[in-house]
Amino acid sequence: MDTPDLNRNWTEDEENQPIGRRIQRLSLHLTPVPRQLGDLQLRTLTCAARTKLNVDAKSLSFFMRGKHRDIQEKVFYFFNARPELQTPVEISKDDHRELCMRQLLALVREAGVRPFKYVTDEPSKYFAILEAVGSVDMSLGIKMGVQYSLWGGSVLNLGTKKHKVKYYDGIDNMEYPGCFAMTELHHGSNVQGLQTVATFDPITDEFVIDTPNDGAIKWWIGNAAVHGKFATVFAKLMLPTHDTKGVSDMGVHAFVVPIRDLKTHQTLPGIEIHDCGHKVGLNGVDNGALRFRSVRIPRDNLLNRFGDVSRDGKYTSSLPTINKRFAATLGELVGGRVGLAYSSVGVLKIAATIAIRYSLLRQQFGPPKQPEVSILDYQSQQHKLMPMLASTYAFHFATLHLVEIYSEMKKSHDEQLVGDVHALSAGLKAYVTSYTAKSLSICREACGGHGYAAVNRFGSLRNDHDIFQTFEGDNTVLLQQVAADLLKQYKEKFQGGTLAVTWNYLRESMNTYLSQPNPVTARWESEDHLRDPKFQLDAFRYRTSRLLQSVAVRLNKHTKTLGNFGAWNRCLNHLLTLAESHIESVILAKFIESVKSCPDASSRAALKLVCDLYALDRIWKDIGTYRNVDYVAPNKAKAIHKLAEYLSFQVRNIAGELIDAFDLPDHVTRAPIAMQSDAYSQYTQYVGF
Amino acid sequence: MDTPDLNRNWTEDEENQPIGRRIQRLSLHLTPVPRQLGDLQLRTLTCAARTKLNVDAKSLSFFMRGKHRDIQEKVFYFFNARPELQTPVEISKDDHRELCMRQLLALVREAGVRPFKYVTDEPSKYFAILEAVGSVDMSLGIKMGVQYSLWGGSVLNLGTKKHKVKYYDGIDNMEYPGCFAMTELHHGSNVQGLQTVATFDPITDEFVIDTPNDGAIKWWIGNAAVHGKFATVFAKLMLPTHDTKGVSDMGVHAFVVPIRDLKTHQTLPGIEIHDCGHKVGLNGVDNGALRFRSVRIPRDNLLNRFGDVSRDGKYTSSLPTINKRFAATLGELVGGRVGLAYSSVGVLKIAATIAIRYSLLRQQFGPPKQPEVSILDYQSQQHKLMPMLASTYAFHFATLHLVEIYSEMKKSHDEQLVGDVHALSAGLKAYVTSYTAKSLSICREACGGHGYAAVNRFGSLRNDHDIFQTFEGDNTVLLQQVAADLLKQYKEKFQGGTLAVTWNYLRESMNTYLSQPNPVTARWESEDHLRDPKFQLDAFRYRTSRLLQSVAVRLNKHTKTLGNFGAWNRCLNHLLTLAESHIESVILAKFIESVKSCPDASSRAALKLVCDLYALDRIWKDIGTYRNVDYVAPNKAKAIHKLAEYLSFQVRNIAGELIDAFDLPDHVTRAPIAMQSDAYSQYTQYVGF
Repeated sequence: MDTPDLNRNWTEDEENQPIGRRIQRLSLHLTPVPRQLGDLQLRTLTCAARTKLNVDAKSLSFFMRGKHRDIQEKVFYFFNARPELQTPVEISKDDHRELCMRQLLALVREAGVRPFKYVTDEPSKYFAILEAVGSVDMSLGIKMGVQYSLWGGSVLNLGTKKHKVKYYDGIDNMEYPGCFAMTELHHGSNVQGLQTVATFDPITDEFVIDTPNDGAIKWWIGNAAVHGKFATVFAKLMLPTHDTKGVSDMGVHAFVVPIRDLKTHQTLPGIEIHDCGHKVGLNGVDNGALRFRSVRIPRDNLLNRFGDVSRDGKYTSSLPTINKRFAATLGELVGGRVGLAYSSVGVLKIAATIAIRYSLLRQQFGPPKQPEVSILDYQSQQHKLMPMLASTYAFHFATLHLVEIYSEMKKSHDEQLVGDVHALSAGLKAYVTSYTAKSLSICREACGGHGYAAVNRFGSLRNDHDIFQTFEGDNTVLLQQVAADLLKQYKEKFQGGTLAVTWNYLRESMNTYLSQPNPVTARWESEDHLRDPKFQLDAFRYRTSRLLQSVAVRLNKHTKTLGNFGAWNRCLNHLLTLAESHIESVILAKFIESVKSCPDASSRAALKLVCDLYALDRIWKDIGTYRNVDYVAPNKAKAIHKLAEYLSFQVRNIAGELIDAFDLPDHVTRAPIAMQSDAYSQYTQYVGF
Repeated sequence: MDTPDLNRNWTEDEENQPIGRRIQRLSLHLTPVPRQLGDLQLRTLTCAARTKLNVDAKSLSFFMRGKHRDIQEKVFYFFNARPELQTPVEISKDDHRELCMRQLLALVREAGVRPFKYVTDEPSKYFAILEAVGSVDMSLGIKMGVQYSLWGGSVLNLGTKKHKVKYYDGIDNMEYPGCFAMTELHHGSNVQGLQTVATFDPITDEFVIDTPNDGAIKWWIGNAAVHGKFATVFAKLMLPTHDTKGVSDMGVHAFVVPIRDLKTHQTLPGIEIHDCGHKVGLNGVDNGALRFRSVRIPRDNLLNRFGDVSRDGKYTSSLPTINKRFAATLGELVGGRVGLAYSSVGVLKIAATIAIRYSLLRQQFGPPKQPEVSILDYQSQQHKLMPMLASTYAFHFATLHLVEIYSEMKKSHDEQLVGDVHALSAGLKAYVTSYTAKSLSICREACGGHGYAAVNRFGSLRNDHDIFQTFEGDNTVLLQQVAADLLKQYKEKFQGGTLAVTWNYLRESMNTYLSQPNPVTARWESEDHLRDPKFQLDAFRYRTSRLLQSVAVRLNKHTKTLGNFGAWNRCLNHLLTLAESHIESVILAKFIESVKSCPDASSRAALKLVCDLYALDRIWKDIGTYRNVDYVAPNKAKAIHKLAEYLSFQVRNIAGELIDAFDLPDHVTRAPIAMQSDAYSQYTQYVGF
């Protein structure tokens, strides 16, 4: 018999016997007779027994909680005390829309939570409310976002004082529910391709809004199908000229258009509204489609912060070109992305909490003649959930940071900060929402059949969150903006320009990273080395720098034959990988910083463990890239894999505490299988036993 | 300035100029002015222009179609002609359940499609009906499966002639709707842990069925909440003994238990039924929870094929042990997995058709002053959808093959085939359903906002299909069965035993694969070499063999310190990777065979292209493994990546034809955005314009 060459210290008999028995047992689904199992024994079942960290969930939670926890708790308790305002597990679309409106009105008028003023004055408080409200019902979070960030935000940010005077109170107190009518049937991502027109009529001093063809019907407009009274409509501003062309296209501008009568709620003349119908999720939000037929609005309804039309039809703007004006307009909308990234982490926390609490509770199979073990003791379950838990922590710190710099930007309007916030909000929104979307499916699957009960929430969380990947900027498009920004930074580096704050590592270290990998360190494999933040961050940044440099070379090469558009497309996968890689490094850097700043030693140790898992799991996931350039030698690759598995096991040992530190009470998580006491009996009670 | 060392043939000016312009354009979302664009130009935009394959969708479709296409078309046309039997986009749980029952009754009693006889006599026809019915409404497919494969199948396969005589007609004509009551609240995967008991009472010649505790409540039982009259209940058979123990546990057996009165439909005494409530999907199926309180059934109701009890309480069986009887019992249920794997491919075909047709239709952005391009022309969209399309083809052939060998097994009962079907059905069910589940999310995301409209189906397809990963065997558990089977084969190889048909490559080539990789071929990178089926299959099998051999060594090592259970768990991720790797090779081998057997040259060329993409995409996804053992040198890794991207582009060029070959008419795909003509206008009409 040819013995395989790797087969050492191992005889055929030894090989066959235990494996054979295991196989038989597995295939027959044998059940053990219950017997008490010591803690130590349990640990040896799953991995080498080493000391478990001692974590104080309360002190960790204190470090984690945002500064606006009080208003979040106010939201939680308000809805918890009002069962008639809670969304039932099954509800029709129409009932859901009405309930969602009642929830929002109650929040504003009864609970006295008035989010509007925070949109501009204290964004971190606004996002905290948004997250809390979203955990009550994600539809409510989005409906609130449509009213205050989109409709309200467009009036505040794109309009001028006259608009604020006219609309502020009605928006704030919900007497003026409104819409944000940007997307059209044919144009979502390519906003400059919008075809709706607003033609100035100098005789009546009005704009005339028109939908020139079916493709230009405003589509997916939240609040339009049922509740909206106004809409901010994005349309190409057409000004009459005195030449043969007749009109001149001044580019896309925003206009306030009343769509329903304030008293009768009748749809106004010239406006046709249809219901976009049932959606995959978020059915509490009434999305509609709008067609305009010569709808006349006063000239004052142009939101004229970045461009204005005078009584005699002359255009004025502080910004010189259509593109600059359009960029300024869109730039004001970046807050939506910040909110989505932040709320997406909130969703991930809820899902991870439910999946991990249930995985600790649920027992299935076990060693012969011993009790069954928690499914979280299986390496496969740790593999599904522990890197996810680590990512949740990583995203928590990264999005808190994003909210901070966004708030700072809103105050200082510092140009460098503006660029930084734009790119970071695009990147984090794309990366975090894609990750959360995938994780929600993993959580459902990891909880098996009981994860499929609607009451345990994975279905609605996934369906509601799904569109986070698409709205406020399609993730694939946003990542390209990140890549484009990196290339711009790269270019500036070689021209001696300044680099934006978040990615100045490119400046510091591009040359170092682009030298050939060190063949000595490529073999280092000790735990101390692999858990050294410097190694981890260097590895992440090396990859980003390498991807950046190589894609720049490729773009340059292909541009000669394919042109800019063709070259960009030819390198598109490469560019997306670059953007993701960059965002991963930014997240890691922020996580490492947060670990260092944690004052409590036991919490800091727990966070360090979680951070190491985040870092090594990501490096292992892309090990091919590191191996291809010999940044990591085979022995080191193996050591990284082994350590990542071991860290998953270590994190599993404190998973309960890490979840507790999210501080989500049972009336927020709501899933019976995740209740902190008597989960099964709460589940059977729910079903009627 | 330090020029990065990889930066050749490239000056700073060249670098900055076009990239800078591109960045500016991207970040500003510039729209081009429409202008006609030649086909050649379009192709050069995205990739090097090479000749496009000429594919005849009809001839390809003819090769692809199963032999039972006629009955599938009968199903499609029946429901298409009966609008009142079509499931609306929004429907309440209760209405859905009633509609689903009406659909099933109409199928059986009006369309004259009687699936029951095919369950045993012609399984390939049964699975074809199941797939077609599932595409009408997945709930209907599952309800049909519960009635005929599970409830009906348990009577036919676990019972004896007396049961067939008594129940056949009622099951066939739907007068006896029934349930399959296996899973309990506390036990899903670990079926031998079931706690429901059936105690024989020799005085009355009855079994007494009892639910001893809340954890033993039968849970998720399809047809139980509303429609079921009977249930096949799995319970531990308890026989009275004459010693102090009182009863002896003979292991899990199946019993027919009437649960509702045949005439009044009242729940029978001692039986408590509750509704499991709203689910993530499949709400047309009425899942219920059942508790038994001393429910008495005649002795004849034991399904006694593998074990029987005599009038005086003596146990007889042709099989010697509890484990063998249990294995035989579960073994009869393997058909469910075959059906799920097969139907899952059906779901993937529908989703891929909708996503790809829409991606061809949808245009967004484009080169300056030229028309916008189809989003399928973007490399990123090709990356999302083309390997998925290739996998759909791969799974099509693999599951057709599985159905064939399953049918053969049902006829011949050949022992080797039984083992083969068991492992392959477990592996394909797990692999295919996990892949489809992920793909459904990718399709939704790839179709942006319009993918979020419920009418475009990604939501319901995903929600309904989601549980395919869990029921009839949790995927993580099933993959372990595959791994266990491979280890058994491995062991037998070294003992000179025979190897099952599907994986005899292990026998043929284990020794070859386990030698060190050839440093010369590891550098080969020509397209001919990479597209050579021998290279591809060798690479897949090398990986499997290596994983198998190394996990055997590790299991052996850890068993000494951790015991069997601990060692298995310590290697669990490794074992799951092994199982997936093996299934991937089996799928590839079957695909290569199918390509070869295709008689039409143009179809064959198309299939070869698709097969190459499947193979190279999978190798690239796991390039780290290949690199770690130097099976693939860095230059070859790069060539594989480049070729996989290029093949995605090539497949994109025939994507329309490849989708057409699935032969899914518009009334089956149903999504307005995927209609073969006037998709947008059908979509606007749906919304009410």
